[in-house]
Amino acid sequence: MFQVQDWTFLECDKKWEDAEVILYGAPFDGTTSYRPGARFGSQAIRNESYGIESYSPYQDRDLMDMLVRDIGDLSLPFGETKPVLATIKDYVKEIVDSGKIPFMLGGEHLVSLAAFQEVHRAYPDVAVIHLDAHADLRDHYMGVKLSHACVMRRCWELVGDGNIYQFGIRSGEREEFAWAAEGHVFMNRFNFNHLDEVLRKLSNRPVYLTVDLDVLDPSIFPGTGTPEPNGVSFDELRTVVTKVCSAMQIVGCDVNELSPPYDSTGASTIVACTIVREMLLAMKQADKWV
Amino acid sequence: MFQVQDWTFLECDKKWEDAEVILYGAPFDGTTSYRPGARFGSQAIRNESYGIESYSPYQDRDLMDMLVRDIGDLSLPFGETKPVLATIKDYVKEIVDSGKIPFMLGGEHLVSLAAFQEVHRAYPDVAVIHLDAHADLRDHYMGVKLSHACVMRRCWELVGDGNIYQFGIRSGEREEFAWAAEGHVFMNRFNFNHLDEVLRKLSNRPVYLTVDLDVLDPSIFPGTGTPEPNGVSFDELRTVVTKVCSAMQIVGCDVNELSPPYDSTGASTIVACTIVREMLLAMKQADKWV
Amino acid sequence: MFQVQDWTFLECDKKWEDAEVILYGAPFDGTTSYRPGARFGSQAIRNESYGIESYSPYQDRDLMDMLVRDIGDLSLPFGETKPVLATIKDYVKEIVDSGKIPFMLGGEHLVSLAAFQEVHRAYPDVAVIHLDAHADLRDHYMGVKLSHACVMRRCWELVGDGNIYQFGIRSGEREEFAWAAEGHVFMNRFNFNHLDEVLRKLSNRPVYLTVDLDVLDPSIFPGTGTPEPNGVSFDELRTVVTKVCSAMQIVGCDVNELSPPYDSTGASTIVACTIVREMLLAMKQADKWV
Amino acid sequence: MFQVQDWTFLECDKKWEDAEVILYGAPFDGTTSYRPGARFGSQAIRNESYGIESYSPYQDRDLMDMLVRDIGDLSLPFGETKPVLATIKDYVKEIVDSGKIPFMLGGEHLVSLAAFQEVHRAYPDVAVIHLDAHADLRDHYMGVKLSHACVMRRCWELVGDGNIYQFGIRSGEREEFAWAAEGHVFMNRFNFNHLDEVLRKLSNRPVYLTVDLDVLDPSIFPGTGTPEPNGVSFDELRTVVTKVCSAMQIVGCDVNELSPPYDSTGASTIVACTIVREMLLAMKQADKWV
Amino acid sequence: MFQVQDWTFLECDKKWEDAEVILYGAPFDGTTSYRPGARFGSQAIRNESYGIESYSPYQDRDLMDMLVRDIGDLSLPFGETKPVLATIKDYVKEIVDSGKIPFMLGGEHLVSLAAFQEVHRAYPDVAVIHLDAHADLRDHYMGVKLSHACVMRRCWELVGDGNIYQFGIRSGEREEFAWAAEGHVFMNRFNFNHLDEVLRKLSNRPVYLTVDLDVLDPSIFPGTGTPEPNGVSFDELRTVVTKVCSAMQIVGCDVNELSPPYDSTGASTIVACTIVREMLLAMKQADKWV
Amino acid sequence: MFQVQDWTFLECDKKWEDAEVILYGAPFDGTTSYRPGARFGSQAIRNESYGIESYSPYQDRDLMDMLVRDIGDLSLPFGETKPVLATIKDYVKEIVDSGKIPFMLGGEHLVSLAAFQEVHRAYPDVAVIHLDAHADLRDHYMGVKLSHACVMRRCWELVGDGNIYQFGIRSGEREEFAWAAEGHVFMNRFNFNHLDEVLRKLSNRPVYLTVDLDVLDPSIFPGTGTPEPNGVSFDELRTVVTKVCSAMQIVGCDVNELSPPYDSTGASTIVACTIVREMLLAMKQADKWV
Repeated sequence: MFQVQDWTFLECDKKWEDAEVILYGAPFDGTTSYRPGARFGSQAIRNESYGIESYSPYQDRDLMDMLVRDIGDLSLPFGETKPVLATIKDYVKEIVDSGKIPFMLGGEHLVSLAAFQEVHRAYPDVAVIHLDAHADLRDHYMGVKLSHACVMRRCWELVGDGNIYQFGIRSGEREEFAWAAEGHVFMNRFNFNHLDEVLRKLSNRPVYLTVDLDVLDPSIFPGTGTPEPNGVSFDELRTVVTKVCSAMQIVGCDVNELSPPYDSTGASTIVACTIVREMLLAMKQADKWV
Repeated sequence: MFQVQDWTFLECDKKWEDAEVILYGAPFDGTTSYRPGARFGSQAIRNESYGIESYSPYQDRDLMDMLVRDIGDLSLPFGETKPVLATIKDYVKEIVDSGKIPFMLGGEHLVSLAAFQEVHRAYPDVAVIHLDAHADLRDHYMGVKLSHACVMRRCWELVGDGNIYQFGIRSGEREEFAWAAEGHVFMNRFNFNHLDEVLRKLSNRPVYLTVDLDVLDPSIFPGTGTPEPNGVSFDELRTVVTKVCSAMQIVGCDVNELSPPYDSTGASTIVACTIVREMLLAMKQADKWV
Repeated sequence: MFQVQDWTFLECDKKWEDAEVILYGAPFDGTTSYRPGARFGSQAIRNESYGIESYSPYQDRDLMDMLVRDIGDLSLPFGETKPVLATIKDYVKEIVDSGKIPFMLGGEHLVSLAAFQEVHRAYPDVAVIHLDAHADLRDHYMGVKLSHACVMRRCWELVGDGNIYQFGIRSGEREEFAWAAEGHVFMNRFNFNHLDEVLRKLSNRPVYLTVDLDVLDPSIFPGTGTPEPNGVSFDELRTVVTKVCSAMQIVGCDVNELSPPYDSTGASTIVACTIVREMLLAMKQADKWV
Repeated sequence: MFQVQDWTFLECDKKWEDAEVILYGAPFDGTTSYRPGARFGSQAIRNESYGIESYSPYQDRDLMDMLVRDIGDLSLPFGETKPVLATIKDYVKEIVDSGKIPFMLGGEHLVSLAAFQEVHRAYPDVAVIHLDAHADLRDHYMGVKLSHACVMRRCWELVGDGNIYQFGIRSGEREEFAWAAEGHVFMNRFNFNHLDEVLRKLSNRPVYLTVDLDVLDPSIFPGTGTPEPNGVSFDELRTVVTKVCSAMQIVGCDVNELSPPYDSTGASTIVACTIVREMLLAMKQADKWV
Repeated sequence: MFQVQDWTFLECDKKWEDAEVILYGAPFDGTTSYRPGARFGSQAIRNESYGIESYSPYQDRDLMDMLVRDIGDLSLPFGETKPVLATIKDYVKEIVDSGKIPFMLGGEHLVSLAAFQEVHRAYPDVAVIHLDAHADLRDHYMGVKLSHACVMRRCWELVGDGNIYQFGIRSGEREEFAWAAEGHVFMNRFNFNHLDEVLRKLSNRPVYLTVDLDVLDPSIFPGTGTPEPNGVSFDELRTVVTKVCSAMQIVGCDVNELSPPYDSTGASTIVACTIVREMLLAMKQADKWV
Repeated sequence: MFQVQDWTFLECDKKWEDAEVILYGAPFDGTTSYRPGARFGSQAIRNESYGIESYSPYQDRDLMDMLVRDIGDLSLPFGETKPVLATIKDYVKEIVDSGKIPFMLGGEHLVSLAAFQEVHRAYPDVAVIHLDAHADLRDHYMGVKLSHACVMRRCWELVGDGNIYQFGIRSGEREEFAWAAEGHVFMNRFNFNHLDEVLRKLSNRPVYLTVDLDVLDPSIFPGTGTPEPNGVSFDELRTVVTKVCSAMQIVGCDVNELSPPYDSTGASTIVACTIVREMLLAMKQADKWV
């Protein structure tokens, strides 16, 4: 009857039954230590996605042809972290158990922990590729263990040494860099230089890709909680996420840390939309693995 | 299965079949002459509505109990006005023919014309109550007849003299004020002083209520295309729309001219949300008339 | 030697030993459910205070003559609420045990709970005067008990029926208004009408005054997490806080919910600074009681 | 040949020879002590004036019929105050000597001094009506005598006791209020209460009207260098300037302290435009005196 | 007599008779499909031009020495596209028939169509060089043929295959890229790689240069209606426009799509000013061709 | 007793006696000719510094280990330039005479003159390394000699030909470039190409380093008074200041021209904080020279 504008991310309105990738939002920023607002990130990405095209000239593909369903934002409280993570876990479990790929829109980076826990349960040999400006390897942040500043340390506690690969890192405490250097995680500072050899190494393993958009330079992505100078360019990130999503067996992923209150021109949101589009278009290689 | 956040205006998620009021957005601002952006108004009202409660202490009612369905935003082009108005007309026809009340979220004020045309077709004796800072009575604006600055003149061409009641008007060309003074429309300048006698006069007639939110003072509602100093207070507008919606037989209505790019603090959007809530809560008296 | 600009709130640089009032900031907004940012409130009040004068023509007094010390912002984590409240409690204990009056700059409203717990310990017969747009009387918010939306309910659990006096309330769930109406708290909706009789009633009791600045209309105070239309004017609030602070025995107080990221013009911050100044100038009547 | 948009303030494009009022801008804010930006005020007023109508329903007059010429903004340096004031003086001399009325758009308030010096030279019995939030009566500001905070003190040095009438004052040092109370100037604090009797008293004298727009409440006029809570409403100011400009022999006037960088919604600029329009429309009574 | 600040673009105040290049603004954005505001672009470029120098160290030339006249902004309505384009055509006809070069400041991109129609009439062998992020090759946009998204398709209808050369294109529908690939236009995606060979090919033909500033990366130019990541750098664009304007016989050109409401820092406007300056300085080679 | 958040720049809270570098702010922008606001720069750098880490992975050093004291902002008036410069000189004299290195946070660029005068007095053979977009070599700016646009000319008057080395310059009047080309100063336009040879040449001399942050591209640093396109990247600037501060004997330095009102996203401020951190970490090589 009525044909109205879609509320989903750009063309991601396929039926649940048909969908291979499930897009969902986790509007939480309760542990953000500097500038909050990432709670509004997933909704902004959805709303503004119609500002770009569904077709990508980079990949010559169109989201109209992809089997993706955006189910919207989860309902999450503020003030206690554990129930938030538990709620996310419940949803991801349902997605994973349906044989679909969970693609989360943050929210702050801590939400990755809940999604990863479920993906790790289903794929115990999963490796993590982590793109970020910050190491996120602290044991605790002012006593808080469930903090965005500790999320990779918490993931490490699940997978152990040698299973987390970090790229773009350029901020952290001295201790985080030292701990990484002890071999607990692979840390490629400042850029993506050693990505190709990591991809070759992981070629037979399922991969969880977590993208903290502040890996980008603040000139291209100022709308985030903890902007850190000297980041990668849009094209570097676009190339890398396309390569990872098309070359690897992605079993879960997330894009996080867009903070719309600090995106005064809206350009950061459009950048986030484009990265999500490119990842979705590249991931559809997934059907090859099955 | 999945319980995610609603995308509709606050609790306006009842089934079409059950709904007595249909909320819909008309994201158009193609004739705005000063500051465009009202195209984003309806979506902002929807998105930010969860910032207020569904319960009103003014009326002791809750939107959870109301039979309202928000069907979302219509898909409208830019560059030609006629197809936009035609699309709106088609939707409103379907709503009106279903015996439901159309409640439009603008967009700029011209969209009222299309909705009113259909309501007038169904209720030929309908009167218009128009709350606005601007007279909107020009015959044309730089040669353009379908302009936000002419919308009440176009409505007058449908209903003739004595059927349009304007309140709060404080801006226009000299000719507009003169034309109104000739008796074509009733114009209550600056405030709502003669509202009660107008309501008594219209007590047996169906009423279309069109609210241009710039009737409010720019201090409370800066986020609009043509802010005009010396407007009414929030409480004056709240009281009036509640009175009109509860006392009169509303057969159609709209709230328009929120322009989010100029609402830098978000307060204008929250004001718009609250006015819409109060109107919806008051209108539900509608079932009494049938 | 070096004479540089002061970092404290306007002239509040007296020695700890001499100070009768201790100003301190609680930069926390971890349970904010809508728009975060109140964590930056106390620092903004301090920074921008030099935009107003230390002299008040309303009271013909000057902060230069007052015995107030601003000790700065507490160091608080994000992600867990309990340690935050515990830290605040520790500080307030030290202030109260020194016979001084704690004056907290929020932060979100939940921080009042910690301060009030200590004040209540020291003054078990303390009454609460609460100025706010929101009732804050929920038992829990999406399962979370330590939430800004529940702060007065938590205070009520300490003091029981009849000891909390709310003014300006115009938002909440139906249940909150019903619960108040059962007599648990005194709730003066929308305005300050019955303030004088409440002050008479409390004339022999110590009073804790908690001011959620969103009691103001969003036109004068848009820079807050949950703006709610139809608030009081600046002069109404100024008059009331002056009256309460000068007429009553204030044993603790707070001013909260300024959210600088939403104060795009800076006017909300200046309003907050002026309210704090007027309270400090009025409170110095305190020495009369002893 | 080419008919393009006018660059002047709304319809103020009459020939110099015919003009009775000369509008000119003084883009200077070099002594602003808090938030600079008033240098952009005059240009913003000019640019945005087409957002309002040239017709006023308050006065039933239209700027199209008025004999006003906007000559644009003066070219002024920054860093030294004296040459700036000298440049303004030169222009005002030329205007005054041509028998026209100088109407200055600031800029910060210090620019009034230069204009007033020339007007005082031509009309030695001129009185000053000063609308402002701030007393501007300091002898010096951190040692600087030519400061916006001292402008009325400098004017007083020209005219002596009893010739300056201040309204709306609500901010200053204790010393400024005390000095005024000694009878040097007439100071009506907070509002316009005694305006009518002052106008009667000055009925036979030429008047210079200086309007610091921060006399308005920050809710209606946040876009200014030193916003001060508790100001007058738009309608109070509009009524007063209309009354002064129509009832008195205005021999010079200015409107100042719009600071566009702090007018994030543009509403302050529109308010300024409307006040200027109403003053210009009321002033044209001037021809009656001659 | 009075020497006031100029209202034209930086030093572009030469007499019409002497001018070889005529600068004019087309403040229209009626078909913008995403974020409107380009209507304010030309005025912002003019106003802010004094933020840069008239001298260019890149070309060692100064606008003071150039024969350019800025005639201001055309008066254009909103709501109907055809009269807007007709008005622009009339002006451009007059400029072209006077033997001068029309240089238009947009406005949205559709305005280029009207200017190009007149230039094409006068120079039937004219070729188009088009710098843009978007292909603008749609046959229609939601049924609208006169849309910014179709402007190059409309131009193609005038000149036919092989006469339009696009650079920087990185967004469009699949169909647009396919249509270009059929040979209707030359499309250089993402960058300016093949510019030199195109310039050689066109060396004997008059050229119309149309610059949609969103060809720039959003990091350097966020203030535009449809920002698209992965654009060219400022220096790449500066080098290219300088080369085209100095090496080719420019018979008309335009710079468009600056949208000031989305240029929160003002940097986009300064970038636009600088590109316009460099083009004007390079074009003055024009006299060599005659 | 109370442990509250520090008000100094990141960990720069060492005792005066122990400190080798003294950080101080000069909140002045009285000669800014375009967009004022740099007066708020030093305080913003201080406030926001906790948004980055004190540890640098570039240098593997931590500010916790450095002997730096931030003494806060000087108290400076507006309206007269000379007393401002005199006040700065007094402070710098005290720092220099204590054998410490003065590190100034601007403020606009003119403040460098006062600091340099004192440093030059103590180290008569000092050379200046000047990183900037603008030449700042005018003899006067509209008659004003003490202007940010003339600051390097004023320094040259102290040191004479061949002692000032400018890098990154891309804006100025034709005369400034010509004057530099006469050999008065060394000017490396657009970039840092000849830095290494300059450093070699100056290897035996004390150096004053003055960094106008607008040397950066406006994409990375829009929050400044006169943004100029085509600047250097963050990494280029970071590398250069690190090299200069570690390789040369720095006897004084400054970082200026952050204008927070134009830094809508906050990213410019974070960039400034990081540059200051890297300079401080590199400078501690200073103890080697003694």
